[in-house]
Amino acid sequence: MSNPAYTAMWEKLNLDIPAHDGLLEVLGKFYGDIYMSQQGRLQGMEYLDFVLSEVHGLRIQELQQAKEQGKKIIGTFCVFVPEEITLAAGAVHVGLCSGADAGTEEAEKLVPRNTCALIKSFIGFKLARLCPFTESCDLVVGETTCDGKKKAYEAFAEHVPMHVMEVPNTKSDAARDLFKTEVLRYMQALQQLTGTAITPQALASGIRTVNAKRRALQRLSALRSADPAPISGRDALLINQVSFYDDPERFTRSINTLCDQMEDRIARKEGIAPAGTPRLLLSGCPMAVPNWKLPYIMESSGAVIVGEESCIGTRNTRDLVDESQETLDGMIDALVDRYMKIDCACFTPNTERLHNVTAMAQELKADGIVHYALKFCQPYAHEAFKIEKAAREKDIPVLSVETDYSMEDAEQLKTRVEAFVEMVRG
Amino acid sequence: MSNPAYTAMWEKLNLDIPAHDGLLEVLGKFYGDIYMSQQGRLQGMEYLDFVLSEVHGLRIQELQQAKEQGKKIIGTFCVFVPEEITLAAGAVHVGLCSGADAGTEEAEKLVPRNTCALIKSFIGFKLARLCPFTESCDLVVGETTCDGKKKAYEAFAEHVPMHVMEVPNTKSDAARDLFKTEVLRYMQALQQLTGTAITPQALASGIRTVNAKRRALQRLSALRSADPAPISGRDALLINQVSFYDDPERFTRSINTLCDQMEDRIARKEGIAPAGTPRLLLSGCPMAVPNWKLPYIMESSGAVIVGEESCIGTRNTRDLVDESQETLDGMIDALVDRYMKIDCACFTPNTERLHNVTAMAQELKADGIVHYALKFCQPYAHEAFKIEKAAREKDIPVLSVETDYSMEDAEQLKTRVEAFVEMVRG
Repeated sequence: MSNPAYTAMWEKLNLDIPAHDGLLEVLGKFYGDIYMSQQGRLQGMEYLDFVLSEVHGLRIQELQQAKEQGKKIIGTFCVFVPEEITLAAGAVHVGLCSGADAGTEEAEKLVPRNTCALIKSFIGFKLARLCPFTESCDLVVGETTCDGKKKAYEAFAEHVPMHVMEVPNTKSDAARDLFKTEVLRYMQALQQLTGTAITPQALASGIRTVNAKRRALQRLSALRSADPAPISGRDALLINQVSFYDDPERFTRSINTLCDQMEDRIARKEGIAPAGTPRLLLSGCPMAVPNWKLPYIMESSGAVIVGEESCIGTRNTRDLVDESQETLDGMIDALVDRYMKIDCACFTPNTERLHNVTAMAQELKADGIVHYALKFCQPYAHEAFKIEKAAREKDIPVLSVETDYSMEDAEQLKTRVEAFVEMVRG
Repeated sequence: MSNPAYTAMWEKLNLDIPAHDGLLEVLGKFYGDIYMSQQGRLQGMEYLDFVLSEVHGLRIQELQQAKEQGKKIIGTFCVFVPEEITLAAGAVHVGLCSGADAGTEEAEKLVPRNTCALIKSFIGFKLARLCPFTESCDLVVGETTCDGKKKAYEAFAEHVPMHVMEVPNTKSDAARDLFKTEVLRYMQALQQLTGTAITPQALASGIRTVNAKRRALQRLSALRSADPAPISGRDALLINQVSFYDDPERFTRSINTLCDQMEDRIARKEGIAPAGTPRLLLSGCPMAVPNWKLPYIMESSGAVIVGEESCIGTRNTRDLVDESQETLDGMIDALVDRYMKIDCACFTPNTERLHNVTAMAQELKADGIVHYALKFCQPYAHEAFKIEKAAREKDIPVLSVETDYSMEDAEQLKTRVEAFVEMVRG
């Protein structure tokens, strides 16, 4: 990506160029080690390799072109911010950098050290001027899904234009009413920012576009029940990660093409790993680019990952918005109903997640579950106990992991994961 | 408290008698060291000494008598659960044990190790069968004020009868509507449990009783602006702690008597410490009985504490419910308005707390603020950064402390506090 045009663009975005060059170099090497070392990948992954290699280049150039055309860029960190509405306002919806340690020292001047790596990361990326997505944003939309983010956005708001949506703590009728109010408030904020009135036609189109993206990812997810596994977990995670950055229509086309290739491969009974390879479901906290540590450890310990029960995974793709509504209010209700189905650990109770995780493990013929909680993420750390119990009742072994973005525990994790893989191979 | 009648009562409550005897012995010694060693205490503190010495004895006996008369016992952990409504239903409202390490090993089988000491404590007290309040409860009422409690109540509900109130994340109109729904739902749950319909007369009486208690504590708080300080911070904290356990009317009378004595002492220009003693405001997380570590360290380092900006302190007593309403709905609205004023770190934003803390420091002529966050309490740890900034703008020094219930850091804390006291003494 050492393209002079990109460098000029990054300078215009006020990135710290030497530090950003360093970051891209590390990222490129990391990607090479973890991704390019795989044998027998699907041809369609070339598209993903390209997108990722251009994630701070071509995609940012596209965002700048969109801005020149008067479009607004909306940055988010969470699956509760409805992309359907962003698209209906003619804006671009992107996830922001939050998957690597960056600017940690600076971040710890704004938020406590005992804050999860994802939160410290997005603050650090901003303070160290390393994320061209964040720097391109006209608005960053946060939510109150956990104490850490809820309070960190207060500090973050001093550095970026912020809008925070309240996500309730339960799924009661009153909580749903509150979330609907928040969806309407987000719509208003967007209309004000973009100067565009959201029409029923535009919202219907936004809903169709995002549903199509989710359907492609559902198709991908379902194909992974095949043995041998047609795609690695690393590649599937990358696809889910890229779904937050790429243009949604282009992305959907590419994933459907990839799914066609997966179907061919399945028909030939071929896979990324031999039949009988221990199959694991990864469940828990979101893994933002380039947080590939645990998937890499799992797949280099003799296992293949067959599903990601995570916000960057099925939590974001499981449910669709009803497309049969014709009025704006009907569509918004349909959208609210869809978002209130999300089985995030921020809700109490969140028993549907226990069912979803175990059902997913069974559908994908997983031999075991690795539950992943970011250190200091209280909601998922608490739910790890419940997942273990629910899985035990269905005789599914669980390995519960708590980690962050550092490599310090990599050896220790590998030892634990290898022992777990041996156990499920049993 | 080694009274055979009490032992029989504790056995009936299924306490672990040897472990409970051990706990009371440690608690008694700790209380002796921290409280009885003080010189020149107010005579009215004898009442508090008595209440505390009988907190697992006489008070529990009273609860059993109330139960025999058909009254229900409601246990809580948070100032968001409206005592006014509990009293209106003819029930007894008590705080539950949560201020000491107990049953930690058992608790860590239900909740993550990285959970704050207060939460692990209430779970540990239950699992180790050490809290006669918890064992006396007909209903435990939780709330969604932090991730830790919100998720821990799910596990706790397997061991006690639970009702969880949703406290919203913001103070928007929609959030207030949600909280009103939750207050009404609590009222319904209580009416069902007690078989008592809550009348306007009963609610008006509940509001008057709790307002009178809060007024007595406000009076106590205001008297502490005198120099020399008329009461130690330890004693004032104890009073606030006991306000969660004692009969409210008896408590209010006793505190008003104590305030009369404080006024006499102030008129004589006498105090618990010499005039000119460095005055500190303690701000942050709640300190449940017997969590007296930090106040003791502060007051044995040459300072006197002049206020507790905490849930067990002014956060619970600052605001009163409007008494002018005559209809049930009017009273409930007044009550909701009062509770939505609470400046808990669970809200985003919570800027009023910054004003409240600095104004309190100025009114009480504090020379500095010690901000106290329980380890792993994200909301208060995040706000510590804001308090430091707000206080700096008013030239008030701040020492930010993060600790738990263990004594391991006592020496290190003492060193830091002593240096801070020397600095503010200037």
